[in-house]
Amino acid sequence: MKKTIVLSHPKLAESAVQSFLLEGLNWLDAGVNIIKLDQKLLRSTLSLAEQRELILNSAEVFLQFPLYWYSAPASLAQWQEELFTDKFVHDLQEKNKVQPATLAAVISMADKSADFGAGARIGRTISELLSPFQAFAEKVGFSYRKPFIIEQFNYQTPKQQERTLIEYLMYIADADASFEQRSEWLLAQLTKIEQTANSAILRDYLQQQLDEYRLLDATLGEIKNDRE
Amino acid sequence: MKKTIVLSHPKLAESAVQSFLLEGLNWLDAGVNIIKLDQKLLRSTLSLAEQRELILNSAEVFLQFPLYWYSAPASLAQWQEELFTDKFVHDLQEKNKVQPATLAAVISMADKSADFGAGARIGRTISELLSPFQAFAEKVGFSYRKPFIIEQFNYQTPKQQERTLIEYLMYIADADASFEQRSEWLLAQLTKIEQTANSAILRDYLQQQLDEYRLLDATLGEIKNDRE
Repeated sequence: MKKTIVLSHPKLAESAVQSFLLEGLNWLDAGVNIIKLDQKLLRSTLSLAEQRELILNSAEVFLQFPLYWYSAPASLAQWQEELFTDKFVHDLQEKNKVQPATLAAVISMADKSADFGAGARIGRTISELLSPFQAFAEKVGFSYRKPFIIEQFNYQTPKQQERTLIEYLMYIADADASFEQRSEWLLAQLTKIEQTANSAILRDYLQQQLDEYRLLDATLGEIKNDRE
Repeated sequence: MKKTIVLSHPKLAESAVQSFLLEGLNWLDAGVNIIKLDQKLLRSTLSLAEQRELILNSAEVFLQFPLYWYSAPASLAQWQEELFTDKFVHDLQEKNKVQPATLAAVISMADKSADFGAGARIGRTISELLSPFQAFAEKVGFSYRKPFIIEQFNYQTPKQQERTLIEYLMYIADADASFEQRSEWLLAQLTKIEQTANSAILRDYLQQQLDEYRLLDATLGEIKNDRE
């Protein structure tokens, strides 16, 4: 089954974070389908019928967008209005009864996660703000996955951005088992990446993470032995 | 200060409920400005500069729309993206510090209110689903008013629809004091309405409500006297 990313951004070509994520997706083993929607509400190069076919055949659908006024850009709402006719919703519900798919939101935002929730600067939680997408997912029979949040990408150092990318790729690949399993998965991916400056940084970062993990694991082992 | 309704509907001319509400607005004493946004994302006949001027001079702004995929139609998001530039947001925040305005959502929906919330068919509350508009209101310095919800208008009897209209007009007029005050306000409005079949129904309805209120008031008075 396929993975499909529905990417809504008013000015896609000008977005540093979206370009970076799109570049990284090339590294993934399995190809990912991307439906791009931009500010002019131009439709994807795929027809509506082709897009419906793609969604029906996807095990995972990602709605990826920058948080605009605490919701998605207009092009995503427009896409929902056009694509999800009564008939298509019915077809999708029937299909999801047999082969349930998941829907996940991938959000980039200029605010920090810590700024959301009762008493914070933005008084509602991200979960509340994204609840229309949860209700949408449930209506069409998708299970709703915890969203992936990218905060203040443009303020991140290059190293932090690499880390964001790795976590994003793991999220898309659904490699969310133990950290060791995730690391092994990523190492396997990395062996396929050409030697570039970027991947050297990635290797360093991952090696460091693995070393830290092994140290932690050994320490925990010792503590356990001491107690027995 | 003015009242402005921003009306977003994909097919405004075909909407029974929106036509009905627009008709009723003519009855209100003070004129209400209306910015219409439709499915083709056609802009209002007002320029963006004129719309900004109107918003800056409004004591109350209403976002009125049918609930589409548990949020607003695309044209409202598009309007927010276009109108609320950094500069305009700043101007509005400064103005709201001196003369605070309110923002309210007026929602029509095919679902029943009882179908929303944890454990219900739609697992989130209307308050949660509309939280992006609350966060938007607070960001630009508006106070956020409890939304006005119209459920299943097309299934309502003509009498129920008249009642919905009265409640809607009271909401727009902000006549939310005691029921008696609200009734008096409405009676004052009604004296200005031409004699039509509609207003006869309205008069009957209101007279009945007033009679019931006076009966209730008398009964409460008796109970109080008995206790003293």
